[in-house]
Amino acid sequence: MSNDWQQLTDGVARGDVRSLARMITRVENRENGWKEAMKALYPRSGRARIFGITGSPGAGKSSLTNKIALLLVERGLQVGIIAVDPSSPFSGGALLGDRLRMRDIATTEGIFIRSMATRGTLGGLCQAARDVARILDASGKDIVLIETVGVGQDEVEVVKAADLVMVVLVPGQGDGIQALKAGVMEIADLFVVNKADRDGADEVVNDVLAMLEISSQADGKRPPVLKTSALSGDGVPEVVETLLGLQRDPADGTHLQGDRVREEILTLLEREILRVVRGAWGVNGALDEAVGEVLAGRQDPYSVAERMIAGVRNALEK
Amino acid sequence: MSNDWQQLTDGVARGDVRSLARMITRVENRENGWKEAMKALYPRSGRARIFGITGSPGAGKSSLTNKIALLLVERGLQVGIIAVDPSSPFSGGALLGDRLRMRDIATTEGIFIRSMATRGTLGGLCQAARDVARILDASGKDIVLIETVGVGQDEVEVVKAADLVMVVLVPGQGDGIQALKAGVMEIADLFVVNKADRDGADEVVNDVLAMLEISSQADGKRPPVLKTSALSGDGVPEVVETLLGLQRDPADGTHLQGDRVREEILTLLEREILRVVRGAWGVNGALDEAVGEVLAGRQDPYSVAERMIAGVRNALEK
Repeated sequence: MSNDWQQLTDGVARGDVRSLARMITRVENRENGWKEAMKALYPRSGRARIFGITGSPGAGKSSLTNKIALLLVERGLQVGIIAVDPSSPFSGGALLGDRLRMRDIATTEGIFIRSMATRGTLGGLCQAARDVARILDASGKDIVLIETVGVGQDEVEVVKAADLVMVVLVPGQGDGIQALKAGVMEIADLFVVNKADRDGADEVVNDVLAMLEISSQADGKRPPVLKTSALSGDGVPEVVETLLGLQRDPADGTHLQGDRVREEILTLLEREILRVVRGAWGVNGALDEAVGEVLAGRQDPYSVAERMIAGVRNALEK
Repeated sequence: MSNDWQQLTDGVARGDVRSLARMITRVENRENGWKEAMKALYPRSGRARIFGITGSPGAGKSSLTNKIALLLVERGLQVGIIAVDPSSPFSGGALLGDRLRMRDIATTEGIFIRSMATRGTLGGLCQAARDVARILDASGKDIVLIETVGVGQDEVEVVKAADLVMVVLVPGQGDGIQALKAGVMEIADLFVVNKADRDGADEVVNDVLAMLEISSQADGKRPPVLKTSALSGDGVPEVVETLLGLQRDPADGTHLQGDRVREEILTLLEREILRVVRGAWGVNGALDEAVGEVLAGRQDPYSVAERMIAGVRNALEK
């Protein structure tokens, strides 16, 4: 490992905030040596608990995340927050709002907050979240909160990097629950109905309970459903208590952990191969030529891709 | 090509509806011989125009799509609709509603409608949409409408299979525009504010115009912004007129078409490689062993993935 990476990983291991921020950036960008640095840090990780927080847009996830973080710090725990943001130029306003809101909490001792764009992350979003959570873990954070904006499939993927997932809903979103992206309800270990002072909060709770009834598991276990008001803070202590108390069955736990490790290995492998594939054809013009052939009607994309498999083999051999 | 595939592609070429439905299913499932069948059909495709329709959940995209399809049929055009649905068990109700609504239109002569799940599509969702659109195209459809539910990143990817993209908005969704998933606004060739009889429709139009102003392109071209009421049908003829009239700059067109072909070749290639990768380790137990090593703390996932690259090479050589 090069000197500068060594300094960064040493810094992270000491819990130095600047090293933490710089290492995250460099790993996200897949700068040369990132993998060796992650390997070096790996044995220091595995101690933190990682909670995913997702739900409908406008459900108040950020406020809730902040309140949860503050309560965790009050208990003497070190907290890392990964806020997964959309990165459209059109959402600049919302982003700025989030950033300002974040500033309040970012200056709190014991909390490190990091935002991550949903696009352009070289390692893939879920792997990026895993890497960042692992760096935070290695730096001594006790709890890492991964908060997502929106409920796209991306976000669902991201929270798969977490040990436990909390899904936040709000009253008054009409078909709110039904509009929830496929896969979100299924991965919840805890449901929170936020803005519970609004009309219709109990209906949402009942809707969730009804849905859990339909999909009830063989063992009869069901995720708890809690009500909060992130603004007033009502109900948030109960959420923290529940989160900290949530333990998977040891058997389930090992099984799930195995699945997560399997998924991570495959993701790392796939990303590496895709990098090689895209890289190999970006430079030698073979892809441009193939595109020209298809545009001219002399080839179809299926045949071209098939022939290129041979090229992948060669690229991997280098 | 095997006999049964031959029969299917012949049937599709004749516009036979049963062949169409069966071929789509078999290609989606990547059944043996799918690629040869697509190659055989490829020269028959390239005539249809493919429109993507996306936007906020609850924006009335399905009703609008149906109305557009009916107007196209009135003009003597053959229409294919690909409805990209979420596939959560929790959204069974919404799905059923969609299906019922679809039934009205599915019995209309000249319209073929097909719904596609957002999960579990073996070829990747965007490639699946491309394949299905191509089959519809080869069967003689003049227009293919790809309608998405929701605005996740998946959906954004899907509409990239289209020649032109229409983004549907509605009044009264609060931060509706800002909540639109990253990347949706940027790909719009046409904006439609639906449910325009509701309060606030003009505000939404103005918001869109203001955003387009900010992001105006060098050449000063901007996508049109129209108002509709899919329920009453007001404004829908204008949308159809505009869609049919929308032509990209020939220079732009070739450039974009090249990008799309490039993307498709890379996707096909990547999917094939991923299939090989996942397949190779699913069977020989090497992955399970690696997972065990990581769980036992003897290995880290980064090192394991690195070593496996060699295995990929071997798998590709078979």
